[in-house]
Amino acid sequence: MKIAAFGEIMLRLTVPEHQLLTQNNMLQSSYTGTGVNILSSLHQLGAESYMISQLPANRLGQAALAGLWQKGLHTDFIGLQGDHLGSFFVELGFGARPTYVTYQNRRASSFGQAEAAAYDFTTALTRVDAVHICGISLSLTPATRTAALMLARQAQTLGKRVYFDFNFRPSLNEKRGHDEIRQAYRQILPLCDFVFGSRRDLTALLDYPAEATNEDLYQRFVADYDLSGFAGVQRGKDHGQGTITGFWADATEVRYSNQYPVQVLDRIGTGDAYAAGIIFGREQGWEAERTLAIAIINDVLAHSTYDDTPAASLADIEQVLQHPEQDLIR
Amino acid sequence: MKIAAFGEIMLRLTVPEHQLLTQNNMLQSSYTGTGVNILSSLHQLGAESYMISQLPANRLGQAALAGLWQKGLHTDFIGLQGDHLGSFFVELGFGARPTYVTYQNRRASSFGQAEAAAYDFTTALTRVDAVHICGISLSLTPATRTAALMLARQAQTLGKRVYFDFNFRPSLNEKRGHDEIRQAYRQILPLCDFVFGSRRDLTALLDYPAEATNEDLYQRFVADYDLSGFAGVQRGKDHGQGTITGFWADATEVRYSNQYPVQVLDRIGTGDAYAAGIIFGREQGWEAERTLAIAIINDVLAHSTYDDTPAASLADIEQVLQHPEQDLIR
Amino acid sequence: MKIAAFGEIMLRLTVPEHQLLTQNNMLQSSYTGTGVNILSSLHQLGAESYMISQLPANRLGQAALAGLWQKGLHTDFIGLQGDHLGSFFVELGFGARPTYVTYQNRRASSFGQAEAAAYDFTTALTRVDAVHICGISLSLTPATRTAALMLARQAQTLGKRVYFDFNFRPSLNEKRGHDEIRQAYRQILPLCDFVFGSRRDLTALLDYPAEATNEDLYQRFVADYDLSGFAGVQRGKDHGQGTITGFWADATEVRYSNQYPVQVLDRIGTGDAYAAGIIFGREQGWEAERTLAIAIINDVLAHSTYDDTPAASLADIEQVLQHPEQDLIR
Amino acid sequence: MKIAAFGEIMLRLTVPEHQLLTQNNMLQSSYTGTGVNILSSLHQLGAESYMISQLPANRLGQAALAGLWQKGLHTDFIGLQGDHLGSFFVELGFGARPTYVTYQNRRASSFGQAEAAAYDFTTALTRVDAVHICGISLSLTPATRTAALMLARQAQTLGKRVYFDFNFRPSLNEKRGHDEIRQAYRQILPLCDFVFGSRRDLTALLDYPAEATNEDLYQRFVADYDLSGFAGVQRGKDHGQGTITGFWADATEVRYSNQYPVQVLDRIGTGDAYAAGIIFGREQGWEAERTLAIAIINDVLAHSTYDDTPAASLADIEQVLQHPEQDLIR
Amino acid sequence: MKIAAFGEIMLRLTVPEHQLLTQNNMLQSSYTGTGVNILSSLHQLGAESYMISQLPANRLGQAALAGLWQKGLHTDFIGLQGDHLGSFFVELGFGARPTYVTYQNRRASSFGQAEAAAYDFTTALTRVDAVHICGISLSLTPATRTAALMLARQAQTLGKRVYFDFNFRPSLNEKRGHDEIRQAYRQILPLCDFVFGSRRDLTALLDYPAEATNEDLYQRFVADYDLSGFAGVQRGKDHGQGTITGFWADATEVRYSNQYPVQVLDRIGTGDAYAAGIIFGREQGWEAERTLAIAIINDVLAHSTYDDTPAASLADIEQVLQHPEQDLIR
Amino acid sequence: MKIAAFGEIMLRLTVPEHQLLTQNNMLQSSYTGTGVNILSSLHQLGAESYMISQLPANRLGQAALAGLWQKGLHTDFIGLQGDHLGSFFVELGFGARPTYVTYQNRRASSFGQAEAAAYDFTTALTRVDAVHICGISLSLTPATRTAALMLARQAQTLGKRVYFDFNFRPSLNEKRGHDEIRQAYRQILPLCDFVFGSRRDLTALLDYPAEATNEDLYQRFVADYDLSGFAGVQRGKDHGQGTITGFWADATEVRYSNQYPVQVLDRIGTGDAYAAGIIFGREQGWEAERTLAIAIINDVLAHSTYDDTPAASLADIEQVLQHPEQDLIR
Repeated sequence: MKIAAFGEIMLRLTVPEHQLLTQNNMLQSSYTGTGVNILSSLHQLGAESYMISQLPANRLGQAALAGLWQKGLHTDFIGLQGDHLGSFFVELGFGARPTYVTYQNRRASSFGQAEAAAYDFTTALTRVDAVHICGISLSLTPATRTAALMLARQAQTLGKRVYFDFNFRPSLNEKRGHDEIRQAYRQILPLCDFVFGSRRDLTALLDYPAEATNEDLYQRFVADYDLSGFAGVQRGKDHGQGTITGFWADATEVRYSNQYPVQVLDRIGTGDAYAAGIIFGREQGWEAERTLAIAIINDVLAHSTYDDTPAASLADIEQVLQHPEQDLIR
Repeated sequence: MKIAAFGEIMLRLTVPEHQLLTQNNMLQSSYTGTGVNILSSLHQLGAESYMISQLPANRLGQAALAGLWQKGLHTDFIGLQGDHLGSFFVELGFGARPTYVTYQNRRASSFGQAEAAAYDFTTALTRVDAVHICGISLSLTPATRTAALMLARQAQTLGKRVYFDFNFRPSLNEKRGHDEIRQAYRQILPLCDFVFGSRRDLTALLDYPAEATNEDLYQRFVADYDLSGFAGVQRGKDHGQGTITGFWADATEVRYSNQYPVQVLDRIGTGDAYAAGIIFGREQGWEAERTLAIAIINDVLAHSTYDDTPAASLADIEQVLQHPEQDLIR
Repeated sequence: MKIAAFGEIMLRLTVPEHQLLTQNNMLQSSYTGTGVNILSSLHQLGAESYMISQLPANRLGQAALAGLWQKGLHTDFIGLQGDHLGSFFVELGFGARPTYVTYQNRRASSFGQAEAAAYDFTTALTRVDAVHICGISLSLTPATRTAALMLARQAQTLGKRVYFDFNFRPSLNEKRGHDEIRQAYRQILPLCDFVFGSRRDLTALLDYPAEATNEDLYQRFVADYDLSGFAGVQRGKDHGQGTITGFWADATEVRYSNQYPVQVLDRIGTGDAYAAGIIFGREQGWEAERTLAIAIINDVLAHSTYDDTPAASLADIEQVLQHPEQDLIR
Repeated sequence: MKIAAFGEIMLRLTVPEHQLLTQNNMLQSSYTGTGVNILSSLHQLGAESYMISQLPANRLGQAALAGLWQKGLHTDFIGLQGDHLGSFFVELGFGARPTYVTYQNRRASSFGQAEAAAYDFTTALTRVDAVHICGISLSLTPATRTAALMLARQAQTLGKRVYFDFNFRPSLNEKRGHDEIRQAYRQILPLCDFVFGSRRDLTALLDYPAEATNEDLYQRFVADYDLSGFAGVQRGKDHGQGTITGFWADATEVRYSNQYPVQVLDRIGTGDAYAAGIIFGREQGWEAERTLAIAIINDVLAHSTYDDTPAASLADIEQVLQHPEQDLIR
Repeated sequence: MKIAAFGEIMLRLTVPEHQLLTQNNMLQSSYTGTGVNILSSLHQLGAESYMISQLPANRLGQAALAGLWQKGLHTDFIGLQGDHLGSFFVELGFGARPTYVTYQNRRASSFGQAEAAAYDFTTALTRVDAVHICGISLSLTPATRTAALMLARQAQTLGKRVYFDFNFRPSLNEKRGHDEIRQAYRQILPLCDFVFGSRRDLTALLDYPAEATNEDLYQRFVADYDLSGFAGVQRGKDHGQGTITGFWADATEVRYSNQYPVQVLDRIGTGDAYAAGIIFGREQGWEAERTLAIAIINDVLAHSTYDDTPAASLADIEQVLQHPEQDLIR
Repeated sequence: MKIAAFGEIMLRLTVPEHQLLTQNNMLQSSYTGTGVNILSSLHQLGAESYMISQLPANRLGQAALAGLWQKGLHTDFIGLQGDHLGSFFVELGFGARPTYVTYQNRRASSFGQAEAAAYDFTTALTRVDAVHICGISLSLTPATRTAALMLARQAQTLGKRVYFDFNFRPSLNEKRGHDEIRQAYRQILPLCDFVFGSRRDLTALLDYPAEATNEDLYQRFVADYDLSGFAGVQRGKDHGQGTITGFWADATEVRYSNQYPVQVLDRIGTGDAYAAGIIFGREQGWEAERTLAIAIINDVLAHSTYDDTPAASLADIEQVLQHPEQDLIR
């Protein structure tokens, strides 16, 4: 199985020990992003992974490449231009204190500034079975929006499956009108095969009726855009503890995973773990039930794992699925 | 709003990762103390903060000054003399294991040894609206006791509100008789406008009757010393988890905040967060209800925050007050 | 009280902040092992502790000696030979994610390769009141098995009590038949005075009937091998949280400690804390009830403590036993 | 003495232990920049320091403010807008390996994007005796160039001395023609009182004749722009070790400091130490000889000091000046 | 250009800040070895690199794979078996204090125990232009010796160039007779195209006459084994500072690079940097003079670089070659 | 060989990476002091070492004990009382920047406050061959002075050799008159067998004539107090680099070691390394030449070693003595 992903690569700088930026002058770095997270998780599950993106043409870009190699990604389709890597600072929350993520000027990054013409999408697509496109590309800059749409179109032309993730971030869209953003999403959705998102994406962004049931919304969305499926995670509370449940809707039914409690070491990127599990199961041709089980455990483990990028192998996931009570493996 | 505080500045040395002193030879340093904590929190809330204290006249004293500047304090009223900064070692607890705090000879510190004559209280007081005095000054050395009383008297003379915190530490008073200590507290209380403390301070230290209700005790205390108010936090347990509730008594009623569960990253200094919230609300002229709500959330967040010194801004507190379920902000 | 222990000394390398081996290139080192853990805990409780083992004759062996001194052990009976110290990597778990322990070729270590003739057991035994033997010696190599048996025999001859811990690790015995391993355990048990283990050791390793009650199994085992006692910990769940209860069986009854909830910072070596508590109480001649209370709190605290090696003193344990609600000591 | 400085504040991220970005995922942060460096050094020498700049209106901007406070700066004249703080990565060199500095998109920073109208230069200038302007402002963006020129003009109007530093960075000017840049420098120089730079600035940037002697160049430059003085550092080699010598030219003569060997822990920002020494001496009205001596030792010590920002107090400098052989002070 | 290398992969554990194993319990890890070093340097220079080796089939083996990816290596030809990764501890020297390297039982490692049959040398060789074999394989175990010889033979058969490095370590050969080791080297040398080593390898190991000149020895050795060339580094002292000079002998002449002084941050692996430079130049078809210049600067820079593995790109090397005085690049 | 030492145990807190207290909030801790340094070095050389001192009766005192065990010291003669451990902060110098040591109130420490009656000197002395007394005891407090004199007298009575080190620190004696301090030294010297110090101790403290030659001074001092010997280190400069030469005077001659250049990683405690070497050689009955050679290399290596406490074994010293050019040992 060979999968490509298109999206931004970012430098994450995390303050150690649940401290704040003002409390420690050491920061731990890693190179992440939705595409990186999904591809690295797919690699851990057993796929070959190809990142399509841009990095700055300097020593930081080189270091980022090495960081992606370490996460198991092929970087043949990453261009080098510009001098800026989008970065973000993470102050990990604890108890009542939320995690704070502070972005540094993402739009000016090499990825944000690169025109569609900077990419050779055709060559990349012929190398893989499917491609994942992160919805942030639709909001970031006109250039990334154009590139994402071009990639989706070429994938459709070449008969490659397109996985798309809403990843709608209000903070990136403050200055643009609702119509403009909705328009961009409506352009790409017909080119997609399978979409990741949540109820809120459908009601708040695409104006589906807020009073409809989840099942109704999911299936109307699948029908409207002729998708193979729509999947995501529903969060809840049980006796004061957070829980997650995976859903997967297609034209005929809405399936659910078991509900699991989650303990949070690092919330960022957990949805990417779920998406990677679903993509892997689908591409492997697994039964839906097994796919959902693997995907939701991958998500549960991502909550328990430092860094955005999921780090569980298929064996790790199976272990937790079958022996959830075993807390020490040696 | 301009507030001064009088008290000891200490060097805190914390072992990382919930380890013990014997398990790691790296220690994280910070400069703290009740006054520092309250002033830094007031600064985060929006006030100007002036510390009145002493630091050693050496490189460590200079580093401490820089540490206070970083926390937003004005240090014009900090004298430099002597060669010792009181310090304490923190081994953060986990689960059943309590946090251990080991003090290093506080009495010999520059602050402990400085006579009242070393301070120019008048100039400091004319610069501010109110002053906070930490009760530890009454126990530390005869010199600090004298200085605290002189400061309270001058504040009264100049018409500045005096906030006082019991902060009674049995371990600092082992060698002195109960009468002597009670006497010192009884001297300062009539000079105070508003006091922070707990039921135990009233019964164990001031000999109020142990069988009285909380409300009865709080209001008798307010009446006896003609205080504007008496405030503090009541700790409880709910389904095995610690909780806190803020109280605020004046002559006419005893108000309570909501009760909140707490998860503990670092317990030290949390009461200072509550006090800072109450002081800020009072000085701003907020309604009691809002003041209590801000103060108790400030306390909840301080439990979730590394270091003694509270680090939440007013915006951070409002965020948790209004969206307590939001665990990731970006 | 003077106690010796025979077993492997290992280098433990732990990834900080609940991270994985791929997420951080700093590792925290410590020198541990069942014998080290039990002896260091006994030392904290008040005993003199003597380790009987082998370390490599190189700079790492010297560093390990210094590490054991720091933990309060006498190392007079540790030989220096070979060039390998068994090591293991710890990736601490969080929430649903288990702790992963990866061993590095223990059999080739100085300890694994040392013949029984490398030890002067007689001199060591005459120095102490009792000796603890770790069951891993029976599985590691033929040399360690021979040495363990010789030590047990000499101890019996010299009238020194032998404490033995099953410590059966299936992963160390994959290539050997069940009969062979059972045989080794059956050889040493008649030489022992007191044994630590669990129900599973009796049924899975010694073929006791799986359908018997705990009490029945414990007492049959004590009778069959004419032991003074058999002790261990039973794990459970209460409202989703892990709990532990200590048991101690002798010929006449099976006693239990209170049940305690546990919060896990580091699970490894917690059983050694319980064993040390029991050994100390027995050797001191304490009442069984007090011994069980101290041992189980030692175990609870070991769950809350970084590193394999328990770090609580008798005073620390008494503090938690009598004031379990006190979470800050200063 | 009160001095203001106008320039960019940057986040510096340094890899520890002379390692490369690919060798360690911990980075040490600090907040620096020419203005920060000069003001912090002036503060150490005894002046009051006011930074005029812009920081992002987010948590990183707040952390940067705290970082500047720690360095002793007043931040009343720092605006908060935008979402980007210019940052740079430092891989400290060793032996033959040069130090690598990688900048991250400085032009898009809050400072780079802020229009002149965002500043209240008049209020700032009335508060101080003199102002320092960093030449990078002329190259960064049209907005910073306009602001720098406006500040210089208002300073001249208000009769405040303007100190200017060439700080010409070819890498920031690759896309602009030589004439355009020269033009910007020629606009600001007539407004300046005192300038810092090097021979190369005069020949390569301002087209002074390359064959002229140093003394000739310095004094022609002083005369052409009617400056009070022009100062800087000349680097050399002596027996294979780097040396520095300070120069200071005015209309009547060119003075030199002693030549000193330098051992390099961190080269960045050392020139700012020299400039701060000269500014301090001039503003204090010291003799030129003493000013040069203090300035050059400040520069020598900055080579021996981690971080861009000089950290020596006047007492530290005097100590090295008078007892250069004393390598341990206690 | 595509190059493979055969050799051991090791875990290096370095004590920070020039400290000793007893002085700090944090260790920095990296995955190194002669093959890894040469391939990573070749990758930095512009080649594709393929490692042929074995790693343990556990989490540490997986982490090692990720570490090699980060260094730019292809790992398709690395087998996973066994449970041990050879490791070594580095205590970096300073001044008169030498660097201490302590190996941990290399012979028992996955690589040391793997039989020749565990490798598919043919497939690997068809993928590359040349292969590098580390001489340590001849001393480590009979299995590695057999594998190295088989690989050399198959390479010769397939017409691939064999680069060989003596890498003779007396400490690995203490128990074997001189004749046996000499015999092993004499077996492989006729299969090699190009050899790296030193004068001492020829005299002490191969019994060439100790009184011959360097040039004479080098050329006799080239002639005896019909090599294309023999290259290495000669160390010297100049005014008390270490120097290095590269040599390269073939049948017709012995060429030398310039002599360079070296400042040592980390001595280990520097010879591998020289070898990588020579291999790259030869395979590129560069002039001998340019090849020698690049190789010796690569070696100089490796002395200035943390970790065994050289980290300089071709651009970095050219920079130092052409602007050796430039100590700050931005 | 068994040696005791009497002196203060201190907590050393060092800023990493040659940084200043204001530049990093992590500090590395160790437990040191003249006695600790000498005993730990003697232990490395092969002696048994017994510390006679006081530590606070709290968790920090316990951690200090563990720190001394790790350095190989017996702590049977260390009392536990009071609540303060003398501490000092180290900002390691670099190039022209000196190392700054800032002490924290040493006089109030457990050691400083302990009366002579707190020690059982007789028992300690009967256990050893000789005792080392640190001259700081004469300046610290009246209590330590009395204790030091009592110990020296009892040692003389019991026929144990007394080694004494001037260790005169002007900063500890600012408030006392020259006569008083000289008086204390003159009281203890007649009780001593062998003294460590420098020319300056003789002229500035004991008023020997400043114009006398070194040799003359040393031998007069030996004669005046009927010493077996007087030894120390002379510092010099050679081509700009620091050098050291050991001297050893007795009644008949003054011997010198070779002169060695030193590179300084950490200057503190280096004299203790020299003293330990001399004591060890004398107690072993070595020839003077060998003793001097070992002692001076021990000193050279201590300059190259982090922390006060020397860390070289006899084998390490021999290695450098015989193969000074070998910079990598594996």
